[in-house]
Amino acid sequence: MSPPREQSYFVGDVEHFPGIGRIPFEGLSSDNPLAFRLYNETRIVGGKSMREHLRFAVCYWHSFCNAGADAFGRDTRIHSWQRHADALTRAQVRLDAAFEFFSKLGVPYYCFHDVDLAPEDDDILRHERQLAHMVALTKERQAATGVQLLWGIANLCTHPRYAHGAASNPDFSVVARAAAQVKSALDATMALNGLNFVFWNGRDGYASSLNTQMKRERENLARFLAMARDYGRSIGFKGNFLVEPKPVEPMKQLYDVDAATVIAFLKEFDLHRDFKVNVEANHAQLAGHGFAHDVQVCIDANMLGSIDANYGNPQNRWDTVHFPLNQRENVAVMLALLRDGGLKRGGLNLDAKLRRESTDPADLFIAHIGAMDAFAHALLAAEALLKRSPLESWRQHRYRSFDTGPGAEFVRGELSLSQLHQLSQRADIQRQTGSQEAYENLVNQYIAKHH
Amino acid sequence: MSPPREQSYFVGDVEHFPGIGRIPFEGLSSDNPLAFRLYNETRIVGGKSMREHLRFAVCYWHSFCNAGADAFGRDTRIHSWQRHADALTRAQVRLDAAFEFFSKLGVPYYCFHDVDLAPEDDDILRHERQLAHMVALTKERQAATGVQLLWGIANLCTHPRYAHGAASNPDFSVVARAAAQVKSALDATMALNGLNFVFWNGRDGYASSLNTQMKRERENLARFLAMARDYGRSIGFKGNFLVEPKPVEPMKQLYDVDAATVIAFLKEFDLHRDFKVNVEANHAQLAGHGFAHDVQVCIDANMLGSIDANYGNPQNRWDTVHFPLNQRENVAVMLALLRDGGLKRGGLNLDAKLRRESTDPADLFIAHIGAMDAFAHALLAAEALLKRSPLESWRQHRYRSFDTGPGAEFVRGELSLSQLHQLSQRADIQRQTGSQEAYENLVNQYIAKHH
Amino acid sequence: MSPPREQSYFVGDVEHFPGIGRIPFEGLSSDNPLAFRLYNETRIVGGKSMREHLRFAVCYWHSFCNAGADAFGRDTRIHSWQRHADALTRAQVRLDAAFEFFSKLGVPYYCFHDVDLAPEDDDILRHERQLAHMVALTKERQAATGVQLLWGIANLCTHPRYAHGAASNPDFSVVARAAAQVKSALDATMALNGLNFVFWNGRDGYASSLNTQMKRERENLARFLAMARDYGRSIGFKGNFLVEPKPVEPMKQLYDVDAATVIAFLKEFDLHRDFKVNVEANHAQLAGHGFAHDVQVCIDANMLGSIDANYGNPQNRWDTVHFPLNQRENVAVMLALLRDGGLKRGGLNLDAKLRRESTDPADLFIAHIGAMDAFAHALLAAEALLKRSPLESWRQHRYRSFDTGPGAEFVRGELSLSQLHQLSQRADIQRQTGSQEAYENLVNQYIAKHH
Amino acid sequence: MSPPREQSYFVGDVEHFPGIGRIPFEGLSSDNPLAFRLYNETRIVGGKSMREHLRFAVCYWHSFCNAGADAFGRDTRIHSWQRHADALTRAQVRLDAAFEFFSKLGVPYYCFHDVDLAPEDDDILRHERQLAHMVALTKERQAATGVQLLWGIANLCTHPRYAHGAASNPDFSVVARAAAQVKSALDATMALNGLNFVFWNGRDGYASSLNTQMKRERENLARFLAMARDYGRSIGFKGNFLVEPKPVEPMKQLYDVDAATVIAFLKEFDLHRDFKVNVEANHAQLAGHGFAHDVQVCIDANMLGSIDANYGNPQNRWDTVHFPLNQRENVAVMLALLRDGGLKRGGLNLDAKLRRESTDPADLFIAHIGAMDAFAHALLAAEALLKRSPLESWRQHRYRSFDTGPGAEFVRGELSLSQLHQLSQRADIQRQTGSQEAYENLVNQYIAKHH
Repeated sequence: MSPPREQSYFVGDVEHFPGIGRIPFEGLSSDNPLAFRLYNETRIVGGKSMREHLRFAVCYWHSFCNAGADAFGRDTRIHSWQRHADALTRAQVRLDAAFEFFSKLGVPYYCFHDVDLAPEDDDILRHERQLAHMVALTKERQAATGVQLLWGIANLCTHPRYAHGAASNPDFSVVARAAAQVKSALDATMALNGLNFVFWNGRDGYASSLNTQMKRERENLARFLAMARDYGRSIGFKGNFLVEPKPVEPMKQLYDVDAATVIAFLKEFDLHRDFKVNVEANHAQLAGHGFAHDVQVCIDANMLGSIDANYGNPQNRWDTVHFPLNQRENVAVMLALLRDGGLKRGGLNLDAKLRRESTDPADLFIAHIGAMDAFAHALLAAEALLKRSPLESWRQHRYRSFDTGPGAEFVRGELSLSQLHQLSQRADIQRQTGSQEAYENLVNQYIAKHH
Repeated sequence: MSPPREQSYFVGDVEHFPGIGRIPFEGLSSDNPLAFRLYNETRIVGGKSMREHLRFAVCYWHSFCNAGADAFGRDTRIHSWQRHADALTRAQVRLDAAFEFFSKLGVPYYCFHDVDLAPEDDDILRHERQLAHMVALTKERQAATGVQLLWGIANLCTHPRYAHGAASNPDFSVVARAAAQVKSALDATMALNGLNFVFWNGRDGYASSLNTQMKRERENLARFLAMARDYGRSIGFKGNFLVEPKPVEPMKQLYDVDAATVIAFLKEFDLHRDFKVNVEANHAQLAGHGFAHDVQVCIDANMLGSIDANYGNPQNRWDTVHFPLNQRENVAVMLALLRDGGLKRGGLNLDAKLRRESTDPADLFIAHIGAMDAFAHALLAAEALLKRSPLESWRQHRYRSFDTGPGAEFVRGELSLSQLHQLSQRADIQRQTGSQEAYENLVNQYIAKHH
Repeated sequence: MSPPREQSYFVGDVEHFPGIGRIPFEGLSSDNPLAFRLYNETRIVGGKSMREHLRFAVCYWHSFCNAGADAFGRDTRIHSWQRHADALTRAQVRLDAAFEFFSKLGVPYYCFHDVDLAPEDDDILRHERQLAHMVALTKERQAATGVQLLWGIANLCTHPRYAHGAASNPDFSVVARAAAQVKSALDATMALNGLNFVFWNGRDGYASSLNTQMKRERENLARFLAMARDYGRSIGFKGNFLVEPKPVEPMKQLYDVDAATVIAFLKEFDLHRDFKVNVEANHAQLAGHGFAHDVQVCIDANMLGSIDANYGNPQNRWDTVHFPLNQRENVAVMLALLRDGGLKRGGLNLDAKLRRESTDPADLFIAHIGAMDAFAHALLAAEALLKRSPLESWRQHRYRSFDTGPGAEFVRGELSLSQLHQLSQRADIQRQTGSQEAYENLVNQYIAKHH
Repeated sequence: MSPPREQSYFVGDVEHFPGIGRIPFEGLSSDNPLAFRLYNETRIVGGKSMREHLRFAVCYWHSFCNAGADAFGRDTRIHSWQRHADALTRAQVRLDAAFEFFSKLGVPYYCFHDVDLAPEDDDILRHERQLAHMVALTKERQAATGVQLLWGIANLCTHPRYAHGAASNPDFSVVARAAAQVKSALDATMALNGLNFVFWNGRDGYASSLNTQMKRERENLARFLAMARDYGRSIGFKGNFLVEPKPVEPMKQLYDVDAATVIAFLKEFDLHRDFKVNVEANHAQLAGHGFAHDVQVCIDANMLGSIDANYGNPQNRWDTVHFPLNQRENVAVMLALLRDGGLKRGGLNLDAKLRRESTDPADLFIAHIGAMDAFAHALLAAEALLKRSPLESWRQHRYRSFDTGPGAEFVRGELSLSQLHQLSQRADIQRQTGSQEAYENLVNQYIAKHH
């Protein structure tokens, strides 16, 4: 982790966000929408700075590629960097805008897809030349700003060739093309010292089970990941490979359903030593579990890689990727992370998008500020809950019967079913409350109390 | 609204919650789970006390009848008042427990079903005698404590005779029985000076459209409500009649789907002068709208009667009736209420239930305290948002084009489609941001800031 | 309704679906995917031909504009008509392709948006000139084929100017522009003898309640519809105006939630004499009701205008617009329609889209054939259920207590609550089964039995 | 598999379903609601009788214990066997009713919970004595009728002691009691020659993550299953142990989420050699996957144990356990089963319940007949789709690129990422349609065609 950056920022040939400078911390009393109220990157919480705890990343795709289009309408935002007719020029200007934004916002990390950074091309060699060109420019800007690459990824989803999947495509020629694209995206991530490399297998699944041989497709997917791993290690990539689960959308059913399913898949194919999980909050919601659950599943299996922090509107059951402002959910996630010692090589990637109706350039700052403040607030509340509230002692007490006596023997595997049967004849079962309401009040209290 | 009550409480023949006294306000720094941290009933907010603003009610059914059974398991709580073999004795002891709880918690109101208060009986005359007996006892306890009846209701749902509906039952003899039950519940509500009388037509709908004549059933439902209204007015009942919407559950489809549907139904059958809507948060969620939306729909139609304040777990899509701890949603509701001048004859009925695993008598207090603190917090944040933040000026500014010029002419109905066509040829449409993220940050800021 | 068309079809300058001729009826034993197995347009069912019963329409947008793009990927289909660089030429060639398709498939109707037919333009006068040009060409093709316009509509959704809504936009200049667009779409519909004119107010709602004045927006929406009605009548349009409900998507919340809400809205603003409802199956599913329910709600209110027949995957809770192959649901809808005397001025618009992975030109035929066969099958089963099964007598019997005696007096409004109370003391309530399983078995039996 | 039974049936001391005899097969033209129209147990389909293919079981709980209560209302059905005051007498009479039903319906199997068969008791020894008594009686009735036990299970869900879970309970004394109960249920299953023993861990999960140590609880669950397995094998039980997944309900989150999660859990703890999965359709729907998906997941992992065949209303998102009448879904499941060689030791357990409004004794027969006819129909359609339609050749063709050449080398693991990169430079990617609509039409065609 680099030290907190200076209060300066990067500007390329033109300033894309004029009138907005480095976002300052001003505290809760400030009415300035372009200031942090709770995120103070140097504030120490439990021995680490907020910056080190939260490891925020900005995502390239929603923030610099997406311009507001949805399934029912066209782009609404006019990005200054989109005005150029030539795709490569556009990519260069967009790069400057992105690093201006990263450095003005003050995040330590960013994430990208290959096709966010450079124009894609059906000719794989031309595709790679363009990507390499952009990587060189990006390297300079990383050096100039200190902003680092949390992870890279190959987009194996939007091109029509991937309509039936990428690694699990029923047509081998598409699998080969996907492999080529992963190779070049891995090369790019390596060149930029990326900490992780992610797979979101967003078309690997099916639209109809009637035309699909699921077993065959899943096995091809596993082969593909193993090859990518082998290649990555062969070029010296030391980071984690990550798989990001999602249950549905864009397909009727995706194979990487949720954290538990992905962990099982990685273990089934002996990939779990190199691969971890990238949990996305909104995807966990779509899977019916919720953000904190999938984070805990990964932690329990020692398989947490990184986090895409966003939020889905539960009223509209699709991937709405709001900025994560839900404090009760964020606190639950921070509790899990603090207990586990923090994010390690991962980060909180703010994988969220502006609403389509938000069309001012300042909105992009405001949205990120709100999310960063929300997680700073959640960090403070979670730290206090763990250190100064009765939360942990309540939880320990609840399981006390396994700490000694026959309960502990059970845990050590020293009892048989017949012995349990014997014990149960003497047992006196006491009614014990779960006290859920008291725990929940505690969370609301510490959200109100600790800033 | 009565003045805030003394710091005393009611105890009947036995104390049902020994060791718990009047719940005090202790402020945010208190670690006492049996104290309020934010709800201070005498604190003045915008010219009214918190008590007058929030008009909390406790519901009899979840708190004193429900003992933890769910669709997969039996009761988990052992209520002190359930130990008596005789149903009427049980009802009397339960009544004491209820008023002990109301008065220790310090709420001004409660709500009941006929069958919560008194044992039901298939013999309607015996049913009425038992109810009248309990009403007399209740009246004494109301007088002793100052706790008032927010509303009464007849339970036309749980008895097997209502399996196919009550007022919309395909069998006339069931309709007649439902009418008799409503008559006696109305008599009881009148005797206890209830402020409102509610209908939740929880079986009026269908399990299968194949065997159902929906039009006929809805017309019978309307006839029934009109008869109840006529009877109520004939005995001098001056309160509002309320209908509580719910889209599904226990039936596949209920007729009173949501606020908009109920308002339309009431207008179609000319019932809207006497009937208003009782919005339940969890039901509005099940309808796909959310709590604040259905409250606003009622306010816009001048049809808001009262509110059942609870919350549904969006992960489990049924009526989970949690205590309402979701601050962002509660603030949205308080914004709507404050703009409309408050709750009037209605209240915030805490129509929520303890989790099945919560089996200590104290849990009932803790749950209510959490919800009351949450709404007190939401009131403070909403008041500050309206009075001290830019929220209202932002909203007004957004619609400014209708305040003057051709926009205002349009609103006055002075323009035709052809004239709009003409105007559009000259119009210069400016891109305007919706600023949703800025509004949302404002809400989180004021939740963090204002206590 | 025109007589069944000859077994010929329209081809413009080039044949867009070479190798595919007029789709024949071949019966259930045929393995030809490009033949009907159940839809035989001249087959008489209950005194009317299948063609007259089902009044199928093809929709222009999904079939000729959509090319497979979704929120996660680009177009997958290469339409022969999209190859032309000039937008107007493209529109002309597309028109030929559309009428080739309509006439080869053998549907009597089609539906369009203004922007499907002609290229749109920010200059409203140029927009109108282009639309008028295309209308003239369309008129010729209607005459050549006998295919008629079921309804036209103005697309007030996809252009970025409508991001905050059209008629309910907070900016008056957008409202004026929407009015101009409706005027020209109405002119076009009139010129093409369209039977109906539809409004789908797909952005009229909100993304956030925080920045929205719902009441003001809904009132503007009503004013707008009234103006459109007045203009339409002034130019001699005799058809129905229709409003199509949808609860969510693309907005968090739309105002035209479902059939009941739309009917109430139309009545509130005295629009219900000229406006009816266009029920879309998938939208009714999203509203939590289901296709048959919303159709029945409209029939009961005498407000059914027309039907968009499709189906949503209940596993993926958004607007997936599959072709309607769900036989049990289709039978339920046909039961409702047959009881009401059929579709009248409306039709069954096959408002469904090919899956993104379906990229052969023949797929468009195959998809429509499947849906038309499914509804033909449903028609046969429903007709037999009504005429030859016990279904109707079972239903009548269920409500028999209201046909005579005190039940009939209740229906005539001759009883008071007190009289019902009296009656209930003598009433003997018999347990009556709802027999849902028997009804449901009947439906499956008649689906299996009647072709 | 025993030979088809004689056309006789069992009646105990009293006949519980008088007027109903052995349900005959009468074919599609029959209007008799108490006859099969499609299920003809001796009809040979692809070399096996329908009886051998479908291996239907009736479940004891929904059919003989459940009497119509739901979360909002009391029992609606009056079972003849419930009239006895003494619990053990009631159990004996219920047993006769059950075997009368099984034998009149003509199913080869049934399933039970320990507490369905015998009254439960807090005293574990008394509990076991009563169970043993009932087992002896059951054994006689099995012998008299030829009806066999598909599986037994211990109910670790309804008793309040299991509110916080059974094997994963935070209190060891509850774990011990659960173990005792499993021991006696296993003994009973063994005594009755049960083919399988099932675990549905319906409270093993959490209501709140705040008070829960998930890792510890899951490990205890695994220990518990291993002990049960060891005990079962020690007493000579040769059948499969099965775990039944469900994602939510009654808990907010259950641990055995879906087939993939359960298979992973069983492998993680080395239980997968003795344990398989019992897939329940409605649970798979709640998990967002659908019935056919979870069946296929099990088949692909060689982990399919048995099936609970029912259906959930997708409009009401909870466990509505309808009888499975959805033909398109049933056909998809039969396709998967037929490709895999059938159900083996498992069966189709009709784990569905009468609607609460269905109160006639005959309704229980009608409901089961409808489901059995539906699956017989699905079997016929699936068999014809596999043998006489192009379905299988279409699917094989879709994956042909992996059968030879570089695609086959990829499958054999002979290619590296760099070699795929090389291949992709020469590859010519052809657009290939997924033809989903053609597949789906085929299913509807064969449902209409094959009886």
